[in-house]
Amino acid sequence: MPDPNPLHIHGPGCGHHQHDAGPAGGVMVDLPDDSANPILIRVTRGGLVESTHRGRAVVVGADGHVLAAFGDVKAITYPRSANKALQALPLVETGAADAFGLETAELALACSSHDGEPMHTERVAAWLSRIGLSPAHLECGSHAPYSVPTWEAMLRRGEAPTTLHNNCSGKHTGMLTTALHRGEAIRGYVNYQHRVQQRILGVMEQVTAHDLTSAPWGTDGCSIPTIGLPLEALAFGMARMADPQDLPSARADAAQRLLAAWGAHPELVSGTEGFDTLFMQALNSRILSKAGAEGVSVGIIPDEGIAIAVKIDDGAKRAAGPAMAAVLRRLGLLTDPEWAALEGLVQPAIRNRAGLKVGGIEAGF
Amino acid sequence: MPDPNPLHIHGPGCGHHQHDAGPAGGVMVDLPDDSANPILIRVTRGGLVESTHRGRAVVVGADGHVLAAFGDVKAITYPRSANKALQALPLVETGAADAFGLETAELALACSSHDGEPMHTERVAAWLSRIGLSPAHLECGSHAPYSVPTWEAMLRRGEAPTTLHNNCSGKHTGMLTTALHRGEAIRGYVNYQHRVQQRILGVMEQVTAHDLTSAPWGTDGCSIPTIGLPLEALAFGMARMADPQDLPSARADAAQRLLAAWGAHPELVSGTEGFDTLFMQALNSRILSKAGAEGVSVGIIPDEGIAIAVKIDDGAKRAAGPAMAAVLRRLGLLTDPEWAALEGLVQPAIRNRAGLKVGGIEAGF
Repeated sequence: MPDPNPLHIHGPGCGHHQHDAGPAGGVMVDLPDDSANPILIRVTRGGLVESTHRGRAVVVGADGHVLAAFGDVKAITYPRSANKALQALPLVETGAADAFGLETAELALACSSHDGEPMHTERVAAWLSRIGLSPAHLECGSHAPYSVPTWEAMLRRGEAPTTLHNNCSGKHTGMLTTALHRGEAIRGYVNYQHRVQQRILGVMEQVTAHDLTSAPWGTDGCSIPTIGLPLEALAFGMARMADPQDLPSARADAAQRLLAAWGAHPELVSGTEGFDTLFMQALNSRILSKAGAEGVSVGIIPDEGIAIAVKIDDGAKRAAGPAMAAVLRRLGLLTDPEWAALEGLVQPAIRNRAGLKVGGIEAGF
Repeated sequence: MPDPNPLHIHGPGCGHHQHDAGPAGGVMVDLPDDSANPILIRVTRGGLVESTHRGRAVVVGADGHVLAAFGDVKAITYPRSANKALQALPLVETGAADAFGLETAELALACSSHDGEPMHTERVAAWLSRIGLSPAHLECGSHAPYSVPTWEAMLRRGEAPTTLHNNCSGKHTGMLTTALHRGEAIRGYVNYQHRVQQRILGVMEQVTAHDLTSAPWGTDGCSIPTIGLPLEALAFGMARMADPQDLPSARADAAQRLLAAWGAHPELVSGTEGFDTLFMQALNSRILSKAGAEGVSVGIIPDEGIAIAVKIDDGAKRAAGPAMAAVLRRLGLLTDPEWAALEGLVQPAIRNRAGLKVGGIEAGF
C-alpha cells in the first residue's frame, strides 16, 4: 500500500493558500492567482463526479448594479468572441452599415461565430462582393468549418476551407466595411494600431466604463486583438447594450439594431448544431447568447436590461453555456418552461460510442 | 461602474470553504468536494494567463513509497484508458497471447489508444482474422479515427469508420483473445459481469492493492467498465508493473512483457501525431506514457521502478501530458537534454489561424 505520509508539495489542506475571510456576505479581498473560483459545472459518469469546471460568473444591470457574482469577477479576462456585438458597434454607428445597405442578417453575421454552413458562407461572400472585396481581403485565416456535416461534405467533394469558413468571417467583413466607409487602409485592419481596432477599443472603453489604455491584450485566433478587462466590466458593457439610455444616441441606436439582428437570426450566430443558436431558439430569443473561446459566455436579457458574463477557469467550451444557464436559473431568470426547453442542451447526457447514456453535465451548485 | 458590493454567492475569500491547515509538510485532511487542487498548467495569451488547469498528481515507487503528491491524490478517479496495460495482464498471464502467437506489436496494441492509422487498423484486422473473428465481434462501437489526415483521406475516398478505427480496438481484440482462449462467451464481453471484465477487476485489485469490491464504476466510451480507485493506487499499480517482484510470477512475467512491448512500439500506442507516441520517441522509451480520457495520464519509469499518475480536474487532454512532464521535471526525473527534447511537446506554443504564436501552455508551478 502507498506510504501514508507523502510529501505534499501543495494542495488542499496544506495551508499555503488560505486567506482570511471577509465578513459574511462577502467583501472581495486581494487574492493570489491560485485562489479557487467555485465549481460551476460537474461532469458525472456512473456513480462518480468525474470532472469539475471552476469558474466565475457575474450578472449586472445597465445601471451598474451587480445582481450576483460567483468567484473573482474582477479578474482580467479576454472576452474573445463573446464581445462581437460590442466590436460591431462602429460598423453601425459610423454609418457604414447604412451606406452599404446592410441587412439584419449581415448585422447578425457581424456578431457571429458561425459554423461555416452554406447559409453563413454564402451570405458573407455576397456581402464581400457587394462592397467590392473578396475572401482574399479577409485576414482571419481559414479553418475547417465547425459544422462537421459541412466539412465532411466538402471533403467528399474535394474542397478545401477558405477564409469564408473561418467562424469570424462575418465580423471581419464588418470591419472591412467600416474601414472602406471611413476611407481607411484595407490591408492590416487586424492590427492593434489600425484605426479599425483602435476605434473598437475606444467604444469598448466607453461602453464598459473601464479604462483600457494599459489593458493587457492578446492576439485572437482570427488575428485581431482581444482586450483583457474585468469580467464584470464585460457584463456591464453587454447590459448597457440592452438598455443603452446612458450611451450617446448614435451608439445607443447601433446597440439596439445589433441586438435586434442578433435575436432575429439565431441560426446565423453559431449554426444548426451550435449552442448559441439552440439556446436562443429554445427561448425565442428572449435571452441572447454568445460564446467566446476558452470558456467565455455572455447572455443578454434585453427586456430586463441585464447581462451575464461567464468565464470557465480551464477554458472548457462544454461548461460555459451550461454554467450561464445554471446561474440564470439559480437567480430565477429562467422560467420553469424555459428550463425544461433548455435542459437537453444545458444539462446534456454524455453518451459512449455505442450511444448509451453513461454520464452527464450538470450544475455544480 | 459596477456596484462595488456585489452579492457573492460563493468564491474566493468569501469564507465558505476554508479549512484548518494541517502541520507544515502536509497531513491530508478530509475535504469537501470543492476544495481546490493546485494549478498544474497555465495557458497564456499575450500578457495574460488566460486559463488554468488544476489537478492532482502522484509519484509512487513499487514499494509503495509516495515520492511526491500534488493535491488530493486519494480522491477516487476513473483511470479510463490510462490503465490499459493493467487491463491487458490477463491476455498474457492466462496464456492466451502465446496460444494465439501474439507478437509484441499486438501486445502494444492491446495497451494502446490508437489514432486509427493504417498501421493500427491493419494490424488489428489481421489479429482478429488470425483468431477467427472479425471487426463485427468488437463491441467498442466505431468513431472517426483520431488521426485527422487518415479521416480526411477516408472521407475523400467515401469510406465510413469501422470498429477497427475505434481507438480501443486493440484492447478489445485482446479481451476477445482472452475469452476465446478460456472458452468464454464472445458476445457481451464488455459487460461488468462478464468473466473477462471480472478477471480484469481481480487483477487490478491485486496489483493496486486496493479493495475494489464496492468501487464506483462507470461505462467507458468503448462500453467496458472503468473502475474508480484512488489516484495513488493507480500509480502504485503502474509502479508494480515496472518492478513486479512482489507479484505472482506469471503476473510479473506478463507485466514485463507488456511494458517491453509498450516501449518497443511507441508509434502504436497513440499514433504519428499522438502525445504518448511523441513523448516516448523523444525519450527513447525510457519513460512509458499513456493518456486516458478526461485528463488522466500515467507514466512509468521501468528502470527506476516508479510511476506517476495525473488527473486534471476539468478533464482537459491538453493539460494532462504537460502536467505529467512538469511534475517529473520538478522532481528531477527528467534530465535537461530530455526536457529540451520534450519542450515543444509539453510546453507547446498556441498558434492562431494564421500560424502566429499567440500564447503557450506551461507548467503552473
